[in-house]
Amino acid sequence: MPRRGLLIILSSPSGAGKSTLAGRLRAWDSTLQFSVSATTRAPREGEVDGQDYFFVSVPAFQAQVAEDGMLEHAQVFGNYYGSPKAPVKAAIESGRDVLFDIDWQGAQQISNSTLKDHVLSIFILPPSIPELHRRLISRGQDSAEVIEGRMQKSWDEISHWGGYDYVLVNDDVDTTEAQLKTIITAERLRRSQQPQLVDHVRDLQAQFGDRT
Amino acid sequence: MPRRGLLIILSSPSGAGKSTLAGRLRAWDSTLQFSVSATTRAPREGEVDGQDYFFVSVPAFQAQVAEDGMLEHAQVFGNYYGSPKAPVKAAIESGRDVLFDIDWQGAQQISNSTLKDHVLSIFILPPSIPELHRRLISRGQDSAEVIEGRMQKSWDEISHWGGYDYVLVNDDVDTTEAQLKTIITAERLRRSQQPQLVDHVRDLQAQFGDRT
Repeated sequence: MPRRGLLIILSSPSGAGKSTLAGRLRAWDSTLQFSVSATTRAPREGEVDGQDYFFVSVPAFQAQVAEDGMLEHAQVFGNYYGSPKAPVKAAIESGRDVLFDIDWQGAQQISNSTLKDHVLSIFILPPSIPELHRRLISRGQDSAEVIEGRMQKSWDEISHWGGYDYVLVNDDVDTTEAQLKTIITAERLRRSQQPQLVDHVRDLQAQFGDRT
Repeated sequence: MPRRGLLIILSSPSGAGKSTLAGRLRAWDSTLQFSVSATTRAPREGEVDGQDYFFVSVPAFQAQVAEDGMLEHAQVFGNYYGSPKAPVKAAIESGRDVLFDIDWQGAQQISNSTLKDHVLSIFILPPSIPELHRRLISRGQDSAEVIEGRMQKSWDEISHWGGYDYVLVNDDVDTTEAQLKTIITAERLRRSQQPQLVDHVRDLQAQFGDRT
């Protein structure tokens, strides 16, 4: 029986370090497939279509939703965001784990989907709100107004921490990275993630038979 | 809210390396409390009462069962075995994790008890049946008859591997030890195992309040 991959969901308020951590996980394990979200918002400077996001029109997005082509989708700040279903299904059916960098709404939808038995959800909390603010400012990529918008949205995101399997406080990014690797390594050792063990136990049973 | 400890159950057929692994885990983390089983069988050479087992009489054992003083108990090869409840409750209520070296019957009873939300069960499989046999012989502590009895019981134990959260094939003891540590470290990062996070999120909420 082939292994089905895990859907590994990382959520956090913006500024808590989620993107850095997702990048480190991908560098650590090249078999980890990143789920590229589709969005109707305009690309920011430096963002690459098909890599950071799939940038699509509103009608194209809505058509994909109508065709049941999104694993989850939501509207945030007037723009649509969603996780296209096809690449995720292809990956997990070939045994690859998929990493999602999505918010609580998406996490909830995937955690309640037919794939829920394969979901591993992790929430990253900031050490403090002043530190979250400092990190958003230090990125140097957003206006004061955008930063304030993100700060306002932060509590909404944090307030859903109770719906996740694992919760980490990202005080030190190296520690949090190590914790994420530990969690993923452990989850891959779950019985439900090791269908090849059925064959191993069948071999053991045959070896017992040979003894008698 | 104080953390409640985990009940970490290790099961395997005898000879698969469980006792060695349990010893290594205790050396790794001195906060891990070992659940010493009670038994009505006679002590073997070198076994210390209160350390390897609590050696008790049949009436004393039955009285403890009657008083609901056993977390699990079973009869194996005509002897009673059980896990006394009081030391386990005291440990987990003070936030310490407890390690159990018990068979599938005990694992099933604890996994169906009122403590089931805090159970972490791990099954250790041997790489092969000839290797299991070789390991039992190489211990040099049992007669051929006792070894054959253990071998007969092995399949009964292995056949229950499907009831465990995690399953490891103990091909190399160092690898299996590392995997056990990874699993325990990860499980301690579960949201349900970190009730102190409620306070952290309350602090974050207060810091949001201070901003407005």
